[in-house]
Amino acid sequence: MAKQSKTIITAAVTGATHTPSLSAYFPFTPEQIIKDAVEAHKAGAAVVHVHARDPKDGSPTPDINIMREIVTSIKQQCNAVVCITTGGAVWMSSEQRLAAAVELKPELASCNAGSVNFVFADLAAKIKNPKFDWEIPYLKRTNELVFTNTFTGLEYYLNTMNEHGMRPEFEVYDVGMINNIAYFKEKGLLTGPVYLQFVMGILGGIPATVDNLVYLAKTAREQIGDFVWSCAAAGKAQFPIVTAALTMGGNARVGLEDNIYLKPGVLAKSSAEQVIQIKEIAERLGLEIANSDEARQILNLKGIENVNY
Amino acid sequence: MAKQSKTIITAAVTGATHTPSLSAYFPFTPEQIIKDAVEAHKAGAAVVHVHARDPKDGSPTPDINIMREIVTSIKQQCNAVVCITTGGAVWMSSEQRLAAAVELKPELASCNAGSVNFVFADLAAKIKNPKFDWEIPYLKRTNELVFTNTFTGLEYYLNTMNEHGMRPEFEVYDVGMINNIAYFKEKGLLTGPVYLQFVMGILGGIPATVDNLVYLAKTAREQIGDFVWSCAAAGKAQFPIVTAALTMGGNARVGLEDNIYLKPGVLAKSSAEQVIQIKEIAERLGLEIANSDEARQILNLKGIENVNY
Amino acid sequence: MAKQSKTIITAAVTGATHTPSLSAYFPFTPEQIIKDAVEAHKAGAAVVHVHARDPKDGSPTPDINIMREIVTSIKQQCNAVVCITTGGAVWMSSEQRLAAAVELKPELASCNAGSVNFVFADLAAKIKNPKFDWEIPYLKRTNELVFTNTFTGLEYYLNTMNEHGMRPEFEVYDVGMINNIAYFKEKGLLTGPVYLQFVMGILGGIPATVDNLVYLAKTAREQIGDFVWSCAAAGKAQFPIVTAALTMGGNARVGLEDNIYLKPGVLAKSSAEQVIQIKEIAERLGLEIANSDEARQILNLKGIENVNY
Amino acid sequence: MAKQSKTIITAAVTGATHTPSLSAYFPFTPEQIIKDAVEAHKAGAAVVHVHARDPKDGSPTPDINIMREIVTSIKQQCNAVVCITTGGAVWMSSEQRLAAAVELKPELASCNAGSVNFVFADLAAKIKNPKFDWEIPYLKRTNELVFTNTFTGLEYYLNTMNEHGMRPEFEVYDVGMINNIAYFKEKGLLTGPVYLQFVMGILGGIPATVDNLVYLAKTAREQIGDFVWSCAAAGKAQFPIVTAALTMGGNARVGLEDNIYLKPGVLAKSSAEQVIQIKEIAERLGLEIANSDEARQILNLKGIENVNY
Repeated sequence: MAKQSKTIITAAVTGATHTPSLSAYFPFTPEQIIKDAVEAHKAGAAVVHVHARDPKDGSPTPDINIMREIVTSIKQQCNAVVCITTGGAVWMSSEQRLAAAVELKPELASCNAGSVNFVFADLAAKIKNPKFDWEIPYLKRTNELVFTNTFTGLEYYLNTMNEHGMRPEFEVYDVGMINNIAYFKEKGLLTGPVYLQFVMGILGGIPATVDNLVYLAKTAREQIGDFVWSCAAAGKAQFPIVTAALTMGGNARVGLEDNIYLKPGVLAKSSAEQVIQIKEIAERLGLEIANSDEARQILNLKGIENVNY
Repeated sequence: MAKQSKTIITAAVTGATHTPSLSAYFPFTPEQIIKDAVEAHKAGAAVVHVHARDPKDGSPTPDINIMREIVTSIKQQCNAVVCITTGGAVWMSSEQRLAAAVELKPELASCNAGSVNFVFADLAAKIKNPKFDWEIPYLKRTNELVFTNTFTGLEYYLNTMNEHGMRPEFEVYDVGMINNIAYFKEKGLLTGPVYLQFVMGILGGIPATVDNLVYLAKTAREQIGDFVWSCAAAGKAQFPIVTAALTMGGNARVGLEDNIYLKPGVLAKSSAEQVIQIKEIAERLGLEIANSDEARQILNLKGIENVNY
Repeated sequence: MAKQSKTIITAAVTGATHTPSLSAYFPFTPEQIIKDAVEAHKAGAAVVHVHARDPKDGSPTPDINIMREIVTSIKQQCNAVVCITTGGAVWMSSEQRLAAAVELKPELASCNAGSVNFVFADLAAKIKNPKFDWEIPYLKRTNELVFTNTFTGLEYYLNTMNEHGMRPEFEVYDVGMINNIAYFKEKGLLTGPVYLQFVMGILGGIPATVDNLVYLAKTAREQIGDFVWSCAAAGKAQFPIVTAALTMGGNARVGLEDNIYLKPGVLAKSSAEQVIQIKEIAERLGLEIANSDEARQILNLKGIENVNY
Repeated sequence: MAKQSKTIITAAVTGATHTPSLSAYFPFTPEQIIKDAVEAHKAGAAVVHVHARDPKDGSPTPDINIMREIVTSIKQQCNAVVCITTGGAVWMSSEQRLAAAVELKPELASCNAGSVNFVFADLAAKIKNPKFDWEIPYLKRTNELVFTNTFTGLEYYLNTMNEHGMRPEFEVYDVGMINNIAYFKEKGLLTGPVYLQFVMGILGGIPATVDNLVYLAKTAREQIGDFVWSCAAAGKAQFPIVTAALTMGGNARVGLEDNIYLKPGVLAKSSAEQVIQIKEIAERLGLEIANSDEARQILNLKGIENVNY
């Protein structure tokens, strides 16, 4: 694993976990998502990670047109690397989840590295007056669902991404998933460097502790070899754990997808606020922040001129 | 975690992973399963872990009558603690998987602590002339399936087990699952000591290494507190990893469910052979083997007089 | 281990490792040491850790009068908790090393938890024109010396500290030293909470990595139980590793004793600058900084009114 | 680290820790030491590790003539690789400790990788009627001593061993010592493969637990790269920990130097008994035992024809 010279900040601006009633600042219309992504980029995020939401009620949607609107507008306004989700929401089919990426051919697309319970039902209790009817049932239903990413599915995703020159960002929720990635690397489906995003603190996955982060990184060193890694952590663990990742030579993902707070008790007004805060920490650690072109080089991306939007 | 005085050996005699063509010694008829279980007990296994298979072709089955035949006969012949699976085969529904345990009310029932890919498709390549038509498709199909154990499902299993006085043996396939168990402990659904079975080396779960075993045990100490643990490992990792568990104060699971070999290149003729081998190792480590009544005490079981078979 | 509400910053202002020619900002006269300590306290350090140096040439000295001058003046100017070294320099005898603490009876005194090579000979190559003759031979000689803290010595130190109401801050240089502390705890020589300072990155001791820090903390949780911990790291590892400690719930030691830089290539003008930098990181992690009275409570100290200076 | 095909058993037959009154079976005359070494070799030990003791009272001695008598007789009787100590007893000077190896030029010589407290004073309480006057004071005095191996000393040892074609077996007592070895490797004083002996459970060093063993091995993989390793553990931890080493791909050291028992409460009648017991475990783990010539190849030794005795 070559030592990386600069640090990549990713902003995950909306995701499919939080719902609009959890924070007045939470972006869900295309305009809001675009604005948050562009501001996060200007604040220092080399990469923005986007999902599409239904403009009417903020519910996650596989609608390609909405995703196209989002990424096209981001491209017009800034140089950010865009990572399109293929995780979608847990109720979507594999084809639905992959469709937008196949159509739009971004530089980077998420690739969830295995199956896991993905429970955020306890968020329901935090909403007293839901703005939209779907929110509470949506949150509670996660008790009953599995985030499904079978080996057949993974092979299909990887072949499709390879075909379209999209690089997978592997979302890793537990230790065994690193072995899944090693399995597909051994089968020849991956080109270097492998890009890992440790997503910690999901109920069902590995808890967000520094011990666990160290163990994930150690496992990746032993099983993957040539890789670049970043870390995201759910809820209040976001800043401690992502900062720990920085101290270990990792890259940082922040954003309202993972955590709606800036500090204990203080809602973040935007993903950009979180980007600024992690950047201020990084600078005090003597780190330099990568711009988007430097991130493209580190992650070996095809370039913004090769996307289909 | 109180220091445990004696070591429990569990024999998992048939499972739902291996198929008859993989080994001429593999038990799948009720008679074979009963014989292997009883012999394993006589060889030193305080606990036998059983699944039901269709006598005609050895395919896993949720048939309660077959399971009743197996456990009744075992009870008639010996004092072994019987642990009935609720994992079943990955294609079964939750109700199918739990039905036999609810009907028969054993002392111990397995309880899979989360969802995970559970892939053993590569076994198909080891079978040149399958005895039965279902074997190859069954093995290959694991590429497409998730072993599903949602939070709603887990709550249902635990409530049902509590109601019937069955103690859950938690099958743990990765680090995050320990956190799942801690979650249900916090909710008050578990009584002590919690019994954990680390099942290592399933493709999709955590690989079978001593590093990983140490990490699972460390995580359990920190998250569960009062627990008893055992370890099983798939394939050729069985003896090294289960032996490592013994050196760490854990208990041992062996049996043809996990591994069909006794030594590299030498098929085990029975689960009893594996029990004898692990017992010989345990004795050289200065450990004493628990008999079934001692295991009942260690695991806080209701007693064989309270089962419904 | 009770969760600690606020974070203690310690400033180690001069130590016995660095020599004056390494940085123009390095304090070694009593006036400089006092000024640096007081400023570090005002910047946020609840605790200041002090050694005495010979005013003429900056060489470490066991001279009690110099130490008295330092701690008396600090007390007159601020409320800082003072931790007096008993490590001294590696060439001093046990009696010399302990003498100042016995005479001055501070609230806190360092207690090195075992013997280790303590090599900083490579610093000699960084000095081209030494201001003082002793510097180069002093640095090079560390290749030949052992930092000696025998069990007999440790028992003597602990008994003496107990007698005078000084609390030991255990300097831990490797994993086995935690076991040494557990040994003396078992013998009844320690009262809770035990205070550990992980001093990482000394050549001879454990390297300064997050992996190693996590392992030290894990070992302490398992072997000591009721403890408070802080972390110091030598050289450029200072900010990454001490920040990692903050993300793990630990306390932070910075100061010119450990590292003469603020950022890569930028010398720190004072320990206060480093205190401010770690405080700015802590605040962005949502942590609150303990003042000296809060530190006294957390560390269970006797109070500044009970020192003998 | 290339996967090693066969497993090396080392027998450490007398050492400098235990004293004659601890066990009637403890060898200390040259005749006894020779007999124990040769029997251990015949039982399966490819390597025998020897110290010299004074025939009159069993106290450790740097006497070259006694060491010559021992190794010459072993060579006449068998093909064992002999590893001569350079650790000696803690009260000996560096020159005394190295003298026998320099004179006799064995294939392998121990090389202690750093300084550490090395306390076995608690053994004194186990002796009610000492056979010899030196025993109790010798044991108790370890509270006051440091096992001294400075960087200057290590460089001298390594240069001397290189000059005479002796390969160092690094005795590693704690995590930081692996970094010491990496430091000398970086300086070019080591040729591959580096041979590490993790000596665990000495009071002052790292405790003998599987967690710690895994951490030592992980650290060596990351810091040394190309190495072969073995493990020894003090007292009752001997068989569990050495067995854990076997399950991890390591080699095994047993012998009365480390532990005078065969099982809890049962004194070993010879090192050979312990060799047999670990060999029986190894065989049940599917491992093959290396003979001495295979060990020579694995460790890259100069051959028995090139020793000077």
